[in-house]
Amino acid sequence: GFAKVDHHRKKRQGFPEVIYGEGKTIEQITAILRAIKAKQNDVLITRVSQDKAEVILESHPELTYHDIAQILSWKAKEKKENKEGFIAIICAGTSDLRIAEEAAITAEVLGSNVRRFYDVGVAGIHRLLDQAQMIQEATASVVVAGMEGALPSVVGGLVSHPVIAVPTSVGYGANFQGLSALLTMLNSCASGISVVNIDNGFGGAYNAVLIDRLAQGKEK
Amino acid sequence: GFAKVDHHRKKRQGFPEVIYGEGKTIEQITAILRAIKAKQNDVLITRVSQDKAEVILESHPELTYHDIAQILSWKAKEKKENKEGFIAIICAGTSDLRIAEEAAITAEVLGSNVRRFYDVGVAGIHRLLDQAQMIQEATASVVVAGMEGALPSVVGGLVSHPVIAVPTSVGYGANFQGLSALLTMLNSCASGISVVNIDNGFGGAYNAVLIDRLAQGKEK
Amino acid sequence: GFAKVDHHRKKRQGFPEVIYGEGKTIEQITAILRAIKAKQNDVLITRVSQDKAEVILESHPELTYHDIAQILSWKAKEKKENKEGFIAIICAGTSDLRIAEEAAITAEVLGSNVRRFYDVGVAGIHRLLDQAQMIQEATASVVVAGMEGALPSVVGGLVSHPVIAVPTSVGYGANFQGLSALLTMLNSCASGISVVNIDNGFGGAYNAVLIDRLAQGKEK
Amino acid sequence: GFAKVDHHRKKRQGFPEVIYGEGKTIEQITAILRAIKAKQNDVLITRVSQDKAEVILESHPELTYHDIAQILSWKAKEKKENKEGFIAIICAGTSDLRIAEEAAITAEVLGSNVRRFYDVGVAGIHRLLDQAQMIQEATASVVVAGMEGALPSVVGGLVSHPVIAVPTSVGYGANFQGLSALLTMLNSCASGISVVNIDNGFGGAYNAVLIDRLAQGKEK
Amino acid sequence: GFAKVDHHRKKRQGFPEVIYGEGKTIEQITAILRAIKAKQNDVLITRVSQDKAEVILESHPELTYHDIAQILSWKAKEKKENKEGFIAIICAGTSDLRIAEEAAITAEVLGSNVRRFYDVGVAGIHRLLDQAQMIQEATASVVVAGMEGALPSVVGGLVSHPVIAVPTSVGYGANFQGLSALLTMLNSCASGISVVNIDNGFGGAYNAVLIDRLAQGKEK
Amino acid sequence: GFAKVDHHRKKRQGFPEVIYGEGKTIEQITAILRAIKAKQNDVLITRVSQDKAEVILESHPELTYHDIAQILSWKAKEKKENKEGFIAIICAGTSDLRIAEEAAITAEVLGSNVRRFYDVGVAGIHRLLDQAQMIQEATASVVVAGMEGALPSVVGGLVSHPVIAVPTSVGYGANFQGLSALLTMLNSCASGISVVNIDNGFGGAYNAVLIDRLAQGKEK
Amino acid sequence: GFAKVDHHRKKRQGFPEVIYGEGKTIEQITAILRAIKAKQNDVLITRVSQDKAEVILESHPELTYHDIAQILSWKAKEKKENKEGFIAIICAGTSDLRIAEEAAITAEVLGSNVRRFYDVGVAGIHRLLDQAQMIQEATASVVVAGMEGALPSVVGGLVSHPVIAVPTSVGYGANFQGLSALLTMLNSCASGISVVNIDNGFGGAYNAVLIDRLAQGKEK
Amino acid sequence: GFAKVDHHRKKRQGFPEVIYGEGKTIEQITAILRAIKAKQNDVLITRVSQDKAEVILESHPELTYHDIAQILSWKAKEKKENKEGFIAIICAGTSDLRIAEEAAITAEVLGSNVRRFYDVGVAGIHRLLDQAQMIQEATASVVVAGMEGALPSVVGGLVSHPVIAVPTSVGYGANFQGLSALLTMLNSCASGISVVNIDNGFGGAYNAVLIDRLAQGKEK
Ligand SMILES: Nc1ncnc2c1ncn2[C@@H]1O[C@H](COP(=O)(O)O)[C@@H](O)[C@H]1O
Ligand SMILES: Nc1ncnc2c1ncn2[C@@H]1O[C@H](COP(=O)(O)O)[C@@H](O)[C@H]1O
Ligand SMILES: Nc1ncnc2c1ncn2[C@@H]1O[C@H](COP(=O)(O)O)[C@@H](O)[C@H]1O
Ligand SMILES: Nc1ncnc2c1ncn2[C@@H]1O[C@H](COP(=O)(O)O)[C@@H](O)[C@H]1O
Ligand SMILES: [Mg+2]
Ligand SMILES: [Mg+2]
Ligand SMILES: [Mg+2]
Ligand SMILES: [Mg+2]
Ligand SMILES: [Mg+2]
Ligand SMILES: [Mg+2]
Ligand SMILES: [Mg+2]
Ligand SMILES: [Mg+2]
Repeated sequence: GFAKVDHHRKKRQGFPEVIYGEGKTIEQITAILRAIKAKQNDVLITRVSQDKAEVILESHPELTYHDIAQILSWKAKEKKENKEGFIAIICAGTSDLRIAEEAAITAEVLGSNVRRFYDVGVAGIHRLLDQAQMIQEATASVVVAGMEGALPSVVGGLVSHPVIAVPTSVGYGANFQGLSALLTMLNSCASGISVVNIDNGFGGAYNAVLIDRLAQGKEK
Repeated sequence: GFAKVDHHRKKRQGFPEVIYGEGKTIEQITAILRAIKAKQNDVLITRVSQDKAEVILESHPELTYHDIAQILSWKAKEKKENKEGFIAIICAGTSDLRIAEEAAITAEVLGSNVRRFYDVGVAGIHRLLDQAQMIQEATASVVVAGMEGALPSVVGGLVSHPVIAVPTSVGYGANFQGLSALLTMLNSCASGISVVNIDNGFGGAYNAVLIDRLAQGKEK
Repeated sequence: GFAKVDHHRKKRQGFPEVIYGEGKTIEQITAILRAIKAKQNDVLITRVSQDKAEVILESHPELTYHDIAQILSWKAKEKKENKEGFIAIICAGTSDLRIAEEAAITAEVLGSNVRRFYDVGVAGIHRLLDQAQMIQEATASVVVAGMEGALPSVVGGLVSHPVIAVPTSVGYGANFQGLSALLTMLNSCASGISVVNIDNGFGGAYNAVLIDRLAQGKEK
Repeated sequence: GFAKVDHHRKKRQGFPEVIYGEGKTIEQITAILRAIKAKQNDVLITRVSQDKAEVILESHPELTYHDIAQILSWKAKEKKENKEGFIAIICAGTSDLRIAEEAAITAEVLGSNVRRFYDVGVAGIHRLLDQAQMIQEATASVVVAGMEGALPSVVGGLVSHPVIAVPTSVGYGANFQGLSALLTMLNSCASGISVVNIDNGFGGAYNAVLIDRLAQGKEK
Repeated sequence: GFAKVDHHRKKRQGFPEVIYGEGKTIEQITAILRAIKAKQNDVLITRVSQDKAEVILESHPELTYHDIAQILSWKAKEKKENKEGFIAIICAGTSDLRIAEEAAITAEVLGSNVRRFYDVGVAGIHRLLDQAQMIQEATASVVVAGMEGALPSVVGGLVSHPVIAVPTSVGYGANFQGLSALLTMLNSCASGISVVNIDNGFGGAYNAVLIDRLAQGKEK
Repeated sequence: GFAKVDHHRKKRQGFPEVIYGEGKTIEQITAILRAIKAKQNDVLITRVSQDKAEVILESHPELTYHDIAQILSWKAKEKKENKEGFIAIICAGTSDLRIAEEAAITAEVLGSNVRRFYDVGVAGIHRLLDQAQMIQEATASVVVAGMEGALPSVVGGLVSHPVIAVPTSVGYGANFQGLSALLTMLNSCASGISVVNIDNGFGGAYNAVLIDRLAQGKEK
Repeated sequence: GFAKVDHHRKKRQGFPEVIYGEGKTIEQITAILRAIKAKQNDVLITRVSQDKAEVILESHPELTYHDIAQILSWKAKEKKENKEGFIAIICAGTSDLRIAEEAAITAEVLGSNVRRFYDVGVAGIHRLLDQAQMIQEATASVVVAGMEGALPSVVGGLVSHPVIAVPTSVGYGANFQGLSALLTMLNSCASGISVVNIDNGFGGAYNAVLIDRLAQGKEK
Repeated sequence: GFAKVDHHRKKRQGFPEVIYGEGKTIEQITAILRAIKAKQNDVLITRVSQDKAEVILESHPELTYHDIAQILSWKAKEKKENKEGFIAIICAGTSDLRIAEEAAITAEVLGSNVRRFYDVGVAGIHRLLDQAQMIQEATASVVVAGMEGALPSVVGGLVSHPVIAVPTSVGYGANFQGLSALLTMLNSCASGISVVNIDNGFGGAYNAVLIDRLAQGKEK
C-alpha cells in the first residue's frame, strides 16, 4: 500500500503513530485508522476539517470529534488515571484558540491533565500575573501566541518548569504568516523555553506530555 | 562643495540639521560643523567613534563628547528651561546601552527632560512593574530592546502616552541583526506603539521630543 | 468565556478595548460588543466585511457602518468637542483608500478632528506641495502609501510635527505584499517619522490621536 | 549601576542568573560576578573568549575555564550528587564541538550528569545506530547539528524522551549562517523535538536540565 | 504561431521536447502535441489536471493518463528493452506521492526501469535500512522529501551511486513552501547528492535517466 | 591564459570590454590592460582601490586615477566632441558620492557630457525642485540613492527622459545593505524608471550613455 | 473626488496619465477614463480582465480590448507615423505571453513600431541566434523572461542598444513568484541592461518608448 | 578522540572520507590525515589556505598543494588509467577560478580525466559556442558560475549528458552572496541540470565523478 504504518512506534516511543490529517483523503485516513485500531492502539488524528470528520464519523461513530481543535480521537480502553500533575496550556488571544485547543486535546488524549489559561496576552499583563501562581504548579507549560509572540518570554520568567512555545500564524503584514512570533520565541531572553513549528499545537503538547510523564515518574 | 547644508531646516522643522557621523571623514564633519555654528545653531553629531571625536575635539574643544552614546554636541546658548514633563528612556538589557544612551543624549540636546529606566527586560517582569507608575507620568516613552524585543508591548499595555519602539541588533542566530526585534515591535498587539529603524536611538528620541514639545504647548 | 475583555483598559490607557474584527465570528464580535456597551463604553470594531456588518447591524441598529473603512462604531454619548487642532490623513493613491479611511474613521471615533489629503503621491509632487501649508498646521500626520512608499519621507521633510507612516500592501511583484513600502519608511532619511505595521491604518491613527490629545493639553 | 542583577531568580526559577559574556567588558563581568558570589550563588558565565578569561582568572583564580565551551564556572559548595539519570549530548560533526561543549558544561554546572555522543552525523548513520541503545536511557537528549541539521529527526525517531535540537551556524553558502539547520529542526517529522536558537548550546542544556530535574523527582 | 517547438532537441539531447502542462490551455497543449506526434516522437506532458486530461483524451484516446503523477504520455513505438539496471525512486511520506509518481512515470516513459521505495522517512529509520541493500543496486536514486527533507542525506550515506534530491512543498509554517527541504538538501553533509527545484519530480527523473543511460552504455 | 578578452565586443557593442577590478589581482588587471591597449582601445577599470591603483600607475603612468570613483582610465586618442546633450547624475546624500562618481566618470570616459546634481535628497525637496528645470534638459538621468531610495520616483515624475535608478548600500538596520532602496526603485509609481544592481554606478552610466548616443543620433 | 487626475502630466512627461486597472472598480475606471477623454488625450488602461473590459466596452464601444495583453486603448486622433526604427519585444516562452503582449501593445499605443521575437529562451539558444541580426537593428529591446530569467544576459551580449529586462512570475518552487528571474537580471554580467518590476510589461515598454523617441529625434 | 573517521566509507561509497579543511585546526587535520593514510587510502583535503598548507607540508612533504584550488592531496599508489571519457569543467569568468579549480582537482584526484573550458560566460556567447562540440563529448559537465549564473542553462541546452551546476558567491548587491546564481540554476528551463551548494566545487565534481565511473562501466 501507499503507507507503511509504523506499528513498532508504540514500543519505541511510548505512543502509537499519530495521523496528520491535512492533505490526506478520507480513504487514506480511514485505511490508516483501521490499521491502528486493529492493533488495539489509541487513535489521534489532527487537522481534520468538520466536513471530512462528518464523513469519517458515519463509518466510525466510536470516534470523538473536537471541533475547535479539529481533532478526531478514540481511546482503546478507559484508563484509570489518578495523577496530580498537569500541563498549563496558555494562549495570548481569541484568535489563537484553534492551536491552543489542538494542544489541549492532544495532551488529554495522550493521557495528561490539562488546565487552560486563555486570552492572557502581554498587552494587559495583569491578566497573566493574576494566574501566575497556579501556572507555576504545572509540570510544563505550552504557550501559544501569534502576532509578536511575546507571551512565552514573560511566562518563562515567571516559572521554573520547561516552557514549550508555539508560534501561530495569527496576524498580518510584517507578521509574515507567523515568522514574527517564531523569531521572537527563538530569541527569548528568558531561559527554559524551546520552540516548535508555527501552528504546531500538536507538537507543543507532545513535548509537554513527554515531560509530564517523566515528572509523574512513569516511562513508556 | 559636496554637501548642501539645509539651513532652512530650522525654520521648517524646528531644529537645525543633525549630522550623521557614520561614514563621514573628519574633514567632512568639521566642514558641516563650521557651517552650522556659523548660523548660531545647536550642534548634534551622532555615531562618532572615540577616535574620531578626539581629533575633532582638538580643534573644537567647546564640543562635549558623550562616549557611550557616541555623540558630539554643543548648545549655542544656555537656555533656561523649567519644564515639568519628561521622556522615559527604557531599555531591556545592558547590551542595549549604547542605543539607549544615543536616544537619551539626543533628547537632552534637543531640549527635553529625560528619565532612564535601564535593564528592565521582560524575563524578570517585576523590575519593570516596580517602576510602572513613574513611567506612566512621562509624555512619551522610547523603549529600546534587542533579542526578542518584547518590552515595548508590555510598556504599551501599561501607559497611555505614545511609545516609540527602537529595536536593536543585539542578539545572535535567528535574531538576524535585529530583524527579530523589529518584527516583534511592528506586530505588537498593544496600541500606541510606533517603530523606527534598528539601532536608531536618534530617531526614537527625535519623535519623542516632537511629542514632548507638543505636550509642553510649545511649537518650533 | 473564550475572551477576557480588558475593561480596566479605559482607565489605564484612556480608551476602552477596540475589537479587531478579522477572523472573529459574528457571535464572538457581538458577545464582546455587548460586554463593552454594558460598561457605557464607546465601540470601535475594525476589519468588518460588508456581509458581517449587515448581520450585526440587524441586531445592533444603533451602530454605524463605514463601508470603505470597514469599521463599525458607536459613541456612548455625544461629546461637545470644540477643538482647534486636527490630524492630517495623507495618502498616495486611490488604491490606498481603504487603509486611509480606516485611519480617518478611527481618529474621528477616538475624538480627533481629521482633514483628508488623498491621491497626492510623489510621482506628481506638485499635488502635495500645493497643500503643504495646510498640512503643516496639523498636530500630527498619518501618511498612508503602498508601492514604493516614498510619501512619508517627503512629508517628513516639509512639516515639524510627528509623522506616523503606514505602509500598505498595494503593489505587485517586488513589492512583496507591502514589504517594499515598509522598508522605505523605516529607512527614511527624514527625521520625525515612525512606522506601524503594513495596512495598520488603525494603529497609525491611534498613535496620532495620543499625540493630538497631548497637543490639546488633555489627558486620558 | 548599569545592571539590575536578578537575585530573586534563584527562588523563582531554581537557578541564579547566568551571565551571557558576549559583548560585556571584563569590568561588567567581574562586577556582576562579585554580586552573584556575594549571595553564595553558583557562577556560570558563557561566551567568554580565552583572552578575557585569562584576565578574569587572575583576580578570580577560584573559577574554572572550559576552553572549548568558552565557559567560566564556579560552584558555591561541593554537592553530593548520586543521581542515576543522565542527559545525552549528541553532535553531528567536529565543527559543532564548541556548541556541544557549551551544552555539556552548562548541564554539568547546573547539576546534571552528562554523556557525550560526538561525530555521529547522518551521513554515516551506523555510527549513531551503534549507540542508540545507550542514548535511549537518557532523560533528555540535546542534539547539536549544523549544515543540513538532520540529526535530531533521526534521534527523535529512536528515543522516547524529549529531544532539544540546537542548530549551529556551521556550514556555508545556502546554509545562511544556520538558517538551514534551524528550519530543518522546526519542520522535523519526528515527534518530541523542540528547538532553541542557532548556536544556543546553553539554552539547549538549560531545557534538558529542567526536564532531568523533573525526572529525578526534585524541584527547584 | 505562439510556440517554436524545438524539434532539433531529440538529436541534440536524446529526447524530444517535453510539454510542461501547467498554465497552458487545452488548445496550446494539443497544438504542441500534434506537432510532436507528426515527427513520430514520444509524448510526455507533465502537470495536467484530471479535468484537462479528460478533455484531451477525448480527441487523443491513444494517450495514457497517470492520475497520481498527473502525466499524459504516449510511446511512438513499443521498444524492446532488456535492461538490467534500474532507478530507485524513494519518498519520505504519503504526502510526497504526487511528486514521487511524477518522477517514476517520467523515468519509465523515458525508457528506464524503476523501483519504488515509498513512505520510508527518517522518523522511522528502520523502514529505510530494511531496504538499503536493494537500493544500493540502483544506477541512480531519486529521493523525494518534504517537511525537513532529511532523507537524501541518509540515503546518500548508504549508496555509492548518484542521488538526485527532490524537495517537495509538503509541510506548513516554517517550511515556507518547500524552502526548508530545499536548503536541507543543498547543505547535505553526505557526498554525491545534487538537487533540483522544489516539487520538480520530472527534473529529478530526467537527470537519473541520463545517468542510467550512461550506465547502460548507450547514448542518445 | 586565464581570461578570454572579448576583443570582438567593440564591434558588437560599441565599446571595448570594461575591466571590473574588484577581486582581481594587480597581475590579472595589468595583463588584461595590456591586451586591450594593444588593440588601441580605450581603457576603463572600475573598483580599483587607491593602493592597487598606485602600484598599477607605476608601470602605467599614462592612466588617470579618479580617487572618489575608484576608476582607472585611459583614452586611446583625444576625440573632438562637440555635443549639446548631457547626462544628469543626481544623488541623494554625501554618502552616495562614491557610486555617483563611478557613474559620472564612467559616462565621461565613454564619451558623454555629464552634469552633477548632488545632495538633493527628498527630505529637503526644495533642493531638487530648484534644479528641476536644468535636469529636464538632460537626455537621460542616473539617480543614485541609498537609505529609502525615494529620489528616482520624484525625479521620474518631473522629467520626460529615461531615468536609470541606482540603489546604494548606504544605510543600516532594515536597509539590509541596499535591499530597501532597490525595492523602492523597482516599485516606483512613476513611469520611465528602470533599475540596475545595488552600488552599480557603472551600469547606471552605461545604460545612460547608450541612450545619450541614440539621442545624439550616432551609433556604434 | 477620490482621484486627482494628473492632466499636467502630458506636458511634463510627454504622455497623459495611464490607468492601472488592477484593483479599481468599473466605476472608478470609467470616471478617470471620461476625465482623460474630455481633454482629448489618448487612453491606455492596463490590467483589465476580460469580464471588466466587456462591461466597460458596452458604454465605451470606441475603445479596443487586447485580450492577451489585458489592455483597453483608444487613440484621440489617427497619427501619420512614418518611422523607420522599431522596438524588439523578445520573450523566452509561451507562459510569458501575457506580459510580452502587455509590453508590445503599450509600445504600439504610445506610438512606437514593434517587432515580436517570441519563444526564443536560452535552453535552445539557436532559436535566438537565428534572429540576432534583425534584433540588433532595434532602437531598444524589451526582454521578457520567467523561471531563471537568463535571456536578457544573452541578448545584452549580442546587441549595442539598451535592453530593458522584464522578469515574470512564471515558474514554481524556488522561483519565489519571479524573484529568481528578477535577481538574475539585476546581476547580469552583460552591460546595457536595466530592470523593471516583476510582470511589469507596461513599465518595460514605457522605458523603451522613451528611448525610441529620442532615437527618432523627437521630443515630447 | 574528537572525530570518528568513517573508514567503512570506502567500501560503502567507493571513496575514503574526504577532509573538509575549513574551520579545522592544523592538529585536527593532521590527526585525521594520519588515520586515513594508515589505512593506505588516498587523501583529499579541501579548503586549506596557503598558510595552513605550508605548515602541514613541513611534516607531510609527500602531499601536493594545489594553490588556486586550495586543496592538499596524496595518492596511495599510482594507478594506470587509460580512460577515454572526460569531465568538462566549465566556468563563466575569471572570478570563479578558485571554485572551478576545486572541482577540477577533486575530479582528477578521484580518478577522472578533466578538460577545462574557462571564461566562457553568456555575455559573449560565441566563446562557448566555439567549444560546444568538444564539450558535448564529455560524460558529464560541471558548470561553475557566479553573478546571474546563467551559464548552466545554456550548456544544458547544448549537451545530452548530465550537467552539475555550481553557483558561486561571486558578485555584489542583489547577488546576496550567491543566492542569485543558486536560484537561477534551480529554476533552469533546460533539462538535465542538477545543483549543489554555493561555492561547492568539490560537491559538483564528486557527482560528476560518480557519473563518469558509471559511464566507464566501473563500479566502486
Ligand atoms: N498537527 C501536526 N503537526 C505536525 N506533525 C503532526 C501533526 N499531527 C501528526 N503529526 C506527525 O505526523 C506523523 C504522521 O505523518 P504521516 O505519516 O504523514 O501521517 C505523526 O507520527 C506525527 O509525528
Ligand atoms: N544616528 C542616526 N540615525 C539615523 N539618522 C540620523 C542619525 N543621525 C542623524 N540622522 C539624520 O541624518 C540626517 C543627516 O544626514 P547627512 O546629510 O548624511 O548628514 C540628519 O538630518 C538626521 O535626520
Ligand atoms: N550562551 C547564551 N546564549 C543565550 N542566552 C544566554 C547565554 N548565556 C546566558 N544567557 C542568558 O542571558 C541571561 C543574562 O543576560 P544579561 O543580563 O545580558 O547578562 C541569563 O540569565 C541567561 O538566561
Ligand atoms: N501595468 C502597470 N504596472 C506598473 N505601473 C503602471 C501600470 N500601468 C500603469 N502604471 C502606472 O500607474 C500610474 C497610475 O496609477 P494610479 O494612479 O493608481 O492609476 C500610471 O501613471 C502609470 O505610471
Ligand atoms: Mg483579547
Ligand atoms: Mg540582565
Ligand atoms: Mg493616481
Ligand atoms: Mg566526521
Ligand atoms: Mg507515515
Ligand atoms: Mg545632507
Ligand atoms: Mg517552448
Ligand atoms: Mg571575462
